[in-house]
Amino acid sequence: MNITVERAAFLAALQRAHRVVERRNTIPILANVLLRAEGGSLTLIATDLDIEIEDTLPAECAAEGEITLPAHTLLDIVRKLPEGVQIKLEFNAEKGTATLRAGRSRFSLQALPSSEFPSLSRVEDGAAFEVPGHALADVLDRVKFAISTEETRYYLNGIYLHRDPEGSGKLRLVATDGHRLSLASLAVEGLPDFHGVIVPRKAVDELSRMAQAAEKASLALQISGAKLAATFGRARFTTKLIDGTFPDYGRVIPAGNALVATLQAEELASAVDRVGTVSNERGRAVKFTFQPGRLVLEVVNPDAGNASEELDIAYAGEEMSIGFNGRYVGDLLTATAKTGPVEIALNDPGSPTIFRRVEATDALCVLMPMRV
Amino acid sequence: MNITVERAAFLAALQRAHRVVERRNTIPILANVLLRAEGGSLTLIATDLDIEIEDTLPAECAAEGEITLPAHTLLDIVRKLPEGVQIKLEFNAEKGTATLRAGRSRFSLQALPSSEFPSLSRVEDGAAFEVPGHALADVLDRVKFAISTEETRYYLNGIYLHRDPEGSGKLRLVATDGHRLSLASLAVEGLPDFHGVIVPRKAVDELSRMAQAAEKASLALQISGAKLAATFGRARFTTKLIDGTFPDYGRVIPAGNALVATLQAEELASAVDRVGTVSNERGRAVKFTFQPGRLVLEVVNPDAGNASEELDIAYAGEEMSIGFNGRYVGDLLTATAKTGPVEIALNDPGSPTIFRRVEATDALCVLMPMRV
Repeated sequence: MNITVERAAFLAALQRAHRVVERRNTIPILANVLLRAEGGSLTLIATDLDIEIEDTLPAECAAEGEITLPAHTLLDIVRKLPEGVQIKLEFNAEKGTATLRAGRSRFSLQALPSSEFPSLSRVEDGAAFEVPGHALADVLDRVKFAISTEETRYYLNGIYLHRDPEGSGKLRLVATDGHRLSLASLAVEGLPDFHGVIVPRKAVDELSRMAQAAEKASLALQISGAKLAATFGRARFTTKLIDGTFPDYGRVIPAGNALVATLQAEELASAVDRVGTVSNERGRAVKFTFQPGRLVLEVVNPDAGNASEELDIAYAGEEMSIGFNGRYVGDLLTATAKTGPVEIALNDPGSPTIFRRVEATDALCVLMPMRV
Repeated sequence: MNITVERAAFLAALQRAHRVVERRNTIPILANVLLRAEGGSLTLIATDLDIEIEDTLPAECAAEGEITLPAHTLLDIVRKLPEGVQIKLEFNAEKGTATLRAGRSRFSLQALPSSEFPSLSRVEDGAAFEVPGHALADVLDRVKFAISTEETRYYLNGIYLHRDPEGSGKLRLVATDGHRLSLASLAVEGLPDFHGVIVPRKAVDELSRMAQAAEKASLALQISGAKLAATFGRARFTTKLIDGTFPDYGRVIPAGNALVATLQAEELASAVDRVGTVSNERGRAVKFTFQPGRLVLEVVNPDAGNASEELDIAYAGEEMSIGFNGRYVGDLLTATAKTGPVEIALNDPGSPTIFRRVEATDALCVLMPMRV
C-alpha cells in the first residue's frame, strides 16, 4: 500500500472511526483501524465486534493494498499535523510497519495484518427504507434519554424500533427504564412491514450522529433479524441488535388521565431545577401540588433545607399532590420540550402520568410517580 | 439578619468564596460561608484553614447580624435564580434557619452560628507593597507550571517570592520541582526589603485570579513571616505560607552554556507535540539533535513506533544530541513563550539547559536533560 490523502478528509474519517474503538482491548487488533486502498479511494473500517463503522475518502493510490494501524495513535498524529498538508502512507511489508510522512514529520507505526481483522457480515436482505436525517435525529433525541442502563433487563438497554402497531404505518421509537417511558413516531414513505428490533445505546448514538450529519438528506436503513445497517453517502455503519423481547409498552401508557394541566416547559424546567438544589443525592423527589391556576413545587430535605416555588398554570381540576423525581422531569423536558406549552395529564397520585408537548401529537412521555 | 442584595453581585462574590470551600469537610462549618450584614453592606468570608477569602458587596440591611450557610448549596441556588432578581435573606434565630426569597422561589437553609467560624488573624505588620495586576498575573503564569506536586519536598510546593538577591531591587518569583525551574522578575516601585516566602499552590491560583481581575490596577500585598494578604478593591484574601526553606536555586542555573540555538516557540511546541504522539505514558523522552541550521526531534517507542521531525533553527555550534521530557518542553513553552523566538542555551548532553524567550531579559527556565 502506498497512498496520498488530504489531511482534512482523513481526519474526519478517523474521528468517526475511532469512536467505536475501545481504549482497552483484550484482542489487540480491535485497537486498530483497517485501511484499504483500492482504485482512487481509501476505505477505513473500525469495529468493537458490536458495531462496525465504514467510511471512504478519495486517495491517490500509488499501490493498492490493506493494513491495520492503531486507531487512537493515528488519529492523534493526523490531528496534530498542520492544516492543509498531504499525508503519504506507505506499508513496508518486510518490517511490518507503515510509514506516515507529512511536511517534515515522519512516523513509523506497527501494523497488524488485515487478514486478522474481524468483520461483521453485511446486512443483505431484510426491510429497507429511507428516513430524512433531521427527522430521525429529532425522534432519537426525544426517546434516547429513557434508555435503561440496568444490565439485568438487557432488553431495555436500547430503543425499540418498530412499525406503529395502531396501523398508522409510521415508524415508532420507544425507550423505557421502568420509571419513565418515551415514545415518538415518524412518518416514513413506504415503510415496509417488519418485525420490531431493539437498537443498543451505542448504536443509537452513532445513528444519531449520522442522522445529524445528513441534515435534510436521507439515510438508508436496512434491518434484518439480528442487524441494522445505516448508510449515508460514503459512510456506513452496521450494528448487532439486542436479542430480546421488548415489553408490551402499550399497557404502561394510561388512557384515562382526565386531569390536564398546561404550563410552559422552560418555566417548569427552571423551577424544578431550582427547588432540586436542596435535594440529596438519593432522594430527588419533588412534590407537585396542582391547584386551579397554580402549581406549587416543594422539596423537603431534613439535612439541607426546604425549597418551594409557585408557577401559573392552566388547570381547572381538583387539587392534587403527586411526587416526581425532579431529575427525570428535567431530563424529559430537555429531551422533548425545551420551550413552549406542555401538558401534564394526571389520574391520581399513585398512577403513571403523561407529559406531552401540546403541539406534538406523535410523541409522549410517561412518568411513574414517587411517594412524597 | 435581614438583607436584600442584587443577584449578580451576590453570585460573583459566592463564586469567588466557594473556590476555597472543600467539597468534603471533617469540620462541618468549613463547608459554610460566613455572611455578615453591617451598615449598607454584606461581607462574605470563606476559609479552608489555609486560605481565607473575604468579599464585600452593597446590601440593603433591614437588620444587621451574621450567620454561616452552606457555600455550595447557596451558590447553586443563586446561580439558578433568574437574572436581575433581588434576593432577600432573613435569619430566623429561633429555628436556626435562614430563609432566602427571590421572585416566587423560597428556600429555607440550615445555618450554623458564626461564633464557631474559624478566622485567620489579619496580617497587620510586615512588608507592604503594590503590584500592577496584569504584570503579576503574567509572572505567576510563567512560573507556576514548575511548582512541584511531590509532598515529601513540601518546600517546593509553591512559588518562592523574594527580593532579587542580585540587587536589582526587583520582585522575583521562582518555582522548581527538581526537573525544571522557572524564574521571572518584576519591577516593583519601592519594594521593601523582606525575607523571602513560599506561597502555596492553591494561594498562587487565587492570587493569579485576583491579579487577572485587577487588570491594570494594582493589588496591595502584605507579607509577614507566616502569612500573605492580597487586597484588591473590596476583595481580600489571606493565606498561610509554607513553613520551610527554599533551596539555593542560584546554583542550579548554569552560567557557562555557550552553545545557543534560536528557534520559533510555536514551531518547536507543535513539533514536540507531534513526535510525542508515539511516546508511552512513562517515557516521554524526545531526542533533540542540534546541527548547524537544523534541529532533528526523534522519539523511539518499541511498542508504538517511531517519530521524527526537522526544524530550521539558527545554530552555529557543534552537533549535539540531548534528551528532554517532551511534556516539560511543551509546558514551559505554553507558560513562557507561546509565540516568537526562543533561545536554547546548551552546555553538554548531561547538563541543565536554559530555555529563554529572546525578548525576555527577566525570565528563564532551566530544564534537566534525560538519557536517550
